[in-house]
Amino acid sequence: MQKLSFQEYYTAEFSHCYGCGTNNKDGHQLKTYWEGNKTISKFTPKPYHTALPGFVYGGLLASLIDCHSTGTGSAALYKALPDSDKSENYPRCVTAQLKVDYLSPTPIACVLTLIGTVKELKGRKVVVSVELIAKGKVTATGEVVVVQVPDDWHPKG
Amino acid sequence: MQKLSFQEYYTAEFSHCYGCGTNNKDGHQLKTYWEGNKTISKFTPKPYHTALPGFVYGGLLASLIDCHSTGTGSAALYKALPDSDKSENYPRCVTAQLKVDYLSPTPIACVLTLIGTVKELKGRKVVVSVELIAKGKVTATGEVVVVQVPDDWHPKG
Repeated sequence: MQKLSFQEYYTAEFSHCYGCGTNNKDGHQLKTYWEGNKTISKFTPKPYHTALPGFVYGGLLASLIDCHSTGTGSAALYKALPDSDKSENYPRCVTAQLKVDYLSPTPIACVLTLIGTVKELKGRKVVVSVELIAKGKVTATGEVVVVQVPDDWHPKG
Repeated sequence: MQKLSFQEYYTAEFSHCYGCGTNNKDGHQLKTYWEGNKTISKFTPKPYHTALPGFVYGGLLASLIDCHSTGTGSAALYKALPDSDKSENYPRCVTAQLKVDYLSPTPIACVLTLIGTVKELKGRKVVVSVELIAKGKVTATGEVVVVQVPDDWHPKG
């Protein structure tokens, strides 16, 4: 049986994100998994996701790094819970700070791989570092601070 | 006569960006202008650009801040040229580093305004700070380092 992605453990009301929501038919539907103590997502850009022809635009890379990190934060917070506190859903995180370093142009006609590392977990806050890899080369890195949504907060809509 | 946006001064080969390229029919086509010594862009998110229902996903905000900053960098570099070196096109910048602070959730059903300030211009590098405003409130800020594309570099495509 195929294991579920982190995003499939979000509650329905928290599954509308354009970047990673399983209920957003127009969006990227990024899916993230554990791979040992790292996290992994894969994404294939569309031909129109160009910056300059042949390369991916930076906004998509920022978006992928962002959603990979909120997913990693959710999974890390869930993993840290005592078993008695684990429900069937993951907590949901939002981003407080996103930093992306663009190291070299990212080629568009390939699968992009994102590898995440949990750098810090303290209370409701998780710091995640991300490497974005295209054709075997790290073309961008991210450092992202995500925070668990308060329990009493519900989206409008 | 309506004045042209910065992005309309890019050469055709540099006008394919999903975020701001005038030749990318699928993209956001962000347009940026001088307003005094600041720069301004406006953008209305689509209903599916959600994070949590009612709010804009962070990847779109990062993308808008990114393209607003590359546009601001291009215009600032052009403005700094001696008149004798000014052609009909602006130089094109790419992003080296993007940092976004998400201060509060950004409501989706409104026009977003981005205001840019040139913090530093040194050689081919420009540092731009950005405020993203929704319904009169700054909901995100950006600090972006952009670099002029080398003159001898041409995109594949």
